[in-house]
Amino acid sequence: MPPAPELSLPVLMLVVFAAAKLFSEIFERLGMPGLVGEILAGVVIGPSLLHWVTPVPILQDLSELGVLFLLFNVGLEVKSSELLKVGGTAFLVAIIGVLVPLGMGWVILRAWGYGQIESIFVGAALVATSVGITAQVLSAKKMLHEKSSQIILAAAVIDDVLGLIVLAVVSSMARGEFKVIDIGLTAILPIVFMIVMAKWGSHTVSRAVPMLQARLRASEAQFHLAIVLLFALSVVSMHTGVAAIVGAFLAGMSLGESVSKRVHTLVHGTTELLVPFFLVGIGLKIDLSVFKDSSMILLTAIVLLAAVVSKLIGCGAGALSLGLRDAIRIGFGMVPRGEVGMVVAQLGLAMGAVSKPIYGVVVFTALATTLVAPPLLNLAYRQTPTVGD
Amino acid sequence: MPPAPELSLPVLMLVVFAAAKLFSEIFERLGMPGLVGEILAGVVIGPSLLHWVTPVPILQDLSELGVLFLLFNVGLEVKSSELLKVGGTAFLVAIIGVLVPLGMGWVILRAWGYGQIESIFVGAALVATSVGITAQVLSAKKMLHEKSSQIILAAAVIDDVLGLIVLAVVSSMARGEFKVIDIGLTAILPIVFMIVMAKWGSHTVSRAVPMLQARLRASEAQFHLAIVLLFALSVVSMHTGVAAIVGAFLAGMSLGESVSKRVHTLVHGTTELLVPFFLVGIGLKIDLSVFKDSSMILLTAIVLLAAVVSKLIGCGAGALSLGLRDAIRIGFGMVPRGEVGMVVAQLGLAMGAVSKPIYGVVVFTALATTLVAPPLLNLAYRQTPTVGD
Repeated sequence: MPPAPELSLPVLMLVVFAAAKLFSEIFERLGMPGLVGEILAGVVIGPSLLHWVTPVPILQDLSELGVLFLLFNVGLEVKSSELLKVGGTAFLVAIIGVLVPLGMGWVILRAWGYGQIESIFVGAALVATSVGITAQVLSAKKMLHEKSSQIILAAAVIDDVLGLIVLAVVSSMARGEFKVIDIGLTAILPIVFMIVMAKWGSHTVSRAVPMLQARLRASEAQFHLAIVLLFALSVVSMHTGVAAIVGAFLAGMSLGESVSKRVHTLVHGTTELLVPFFLVGIGLKIDLSVFKDSSMILLTAIVLLAAVVSKLIGCGAGALSLGLRDAIRIGFGMVPRGEVGMVVAQLGLAMGAVSKPIYGVVVFTALATTLVAPPLLNLAYRQTPTVGD
Repeated sequence: MPPAPELSLPVLMLVVFAAAKLFSEIFERLGMPGLVGEILAGVVIGPSLLHWVTPVPILQDLSELGVLFLLFNVGLEVKSSELLKVGGTAFLVAIIGVLVPLGMGWVILRAWGYGQIESIFVGAALVATSVGITAQVLSAKKMLHEKSSQIILAAAVIDDVLGLIVLAVVSSMARGEFKVIDIGLTAILPIVFMIVMAKWGSHTVSRAVPMLQARLRASEAQFHLAIVLLFALSVVSMHTGVAAIVGAFLAGMSLGESVSKRVHTLVHGTTELLVPFFLVGIGLKIDLSVFKDSSMILLTAIVLLAAVVSKLIGCGAGALSLGLRDAIRIGFGMVPRGEVGMVVAQLGLAMGAVSKPIYGVVVFTALATTLVAPPLLNLAYRQTPTVGD
């Protein structure tokens, strides 16, 4: 396929943003979630179909900024005290929600005749939830304050650490060495970081922000402080080993109660601009050529189904104490996978543990879950009395 | 010099944004304009000094987005009816403000012993005002509604077309061919675009936006429409031959009276995030190595002085009918040069018409005017009764 033409920045911005909003509008009118339309806009204008746009570096960077601002924005709306309250349930949701997909992925690949290591890699790639899509759905439905939403967010943060541990385990297994201490050390830093931020972040920030702001001369100083904290915690988070979005979320949560309504609106502006680049970016990466090999279609369908069902069962089981309705909501909320699954698959490919076709299946599944989850979430949250969409 | 280390996106965002705001704060405390601090932050963290950061593509893109949003934001605050009222004076300001720098640059280089073509190129590189810096100063001082500010903005738009004509003339001279008709054609498209937008843009948009918005389902639909118009007019503007920021400004101006206060705030959020990348981006490009050749120091100083004085005299003369105080304000307001001057110099370099040392002098001068203008503007706007800074 020929490379897409080199587009100037304003053209790129126009095409991606306008396509996203056009498809969002069409989907809303058809009664489907707008953000599914935005992801499909990426499939349509991207390498899979029209080939107007390819995932060039600037689009990948804007996509990364988009999901950071998305989680930051969600964090601003969430109280850490409420999140800590549901910590026990969230922990259970995260743990069972990791074990079931790991097992299911492994069993399916083994049953299909693949080797031990490759099967474990596929299981591992199905482990980590990427909470961006769910956060966007819940935020658009103004459902972030529901108990089930709080559990999803808390569980997604815990899930990120578990995903890190699984990644450490499988990569050491693939290398044929397995040291429990190393893996324990991998997990300690992010766990300490998260506990410290969740427990004391909000308290510390609510003291520091007014103090700093009083001493700064610039207008919008509070917004500047918020942005610095957003990127600082994203960096810290990456350095402890977990995703930058976890830091962005924790930064938002720490700031939520101490910054003004105006800062919320200013952050929201950037989020509205950048989130379409995150969503279109997913669509640009969806590679339909995995289906050229027709023998892969059935396997892909089964793995995708397993990806959905395993989180529904695993996370739902962890949350059964809240009743079936909330358990289903939480289960569906944890369905979207993303970067981490792709990283696992890429690592497996690089190590020679995963074959090229299976790599394609895993990447497609990780991206396709982001398309499947929003309609399921819409269904699961439909009968709520609080607010319509 | 070794390349700067490859930084991850969150690290890059953190370093640039935090450095910009830190230097801004320090400069405000020393009684100097904050944005000079932000430009100098770029010099300090960039290749000239600490070398933490280099102008990598993502920073250049964020810088370009920053100046687009800056002019869009300024456009939102400005009424096209008011701008058209000062059109005659603005035209005079722009015309004389182009001729004087052109002549002065040429005379200085000729007097210094340089050839005809090279001297004309230097004159041409001093022609085009880049209004971003001035717009930011006036916006921060809440002075956009002063008559002098309106004239600066209108003149800067006209100046952009004149700059385009000058560029067409010198490049055809350098090629040894000179066709008046071609150059006339170059100018017609952007002139028609600007007149149409300034005269009917606001009227059309104020009818179209409520109509479209009423039919759209998405929340924040008005903001999405605004963003699409911003990038659409930036693209049109580039295709007519003038800078994308002219389109961004005209888009803002067309929308100013028809979008809600909330859209103003949402746009302002993005602007606050991105403008530091525009300012730091200028600093990153300032190359102090031009002074390694000590014979160039004096010439650079003279050219820089000429760049300032020629706009002060030229633009000031065009605005003398408003009295000396406003004439000085307008003169200083038109001092900052930017991209276009650098493009002219680059073209001259590529054609072999401009030597490497003179190229360095011109680029340094274009960038240095952005550092010189804000303090001069601060002085010129000090004795106003409206509002202090």
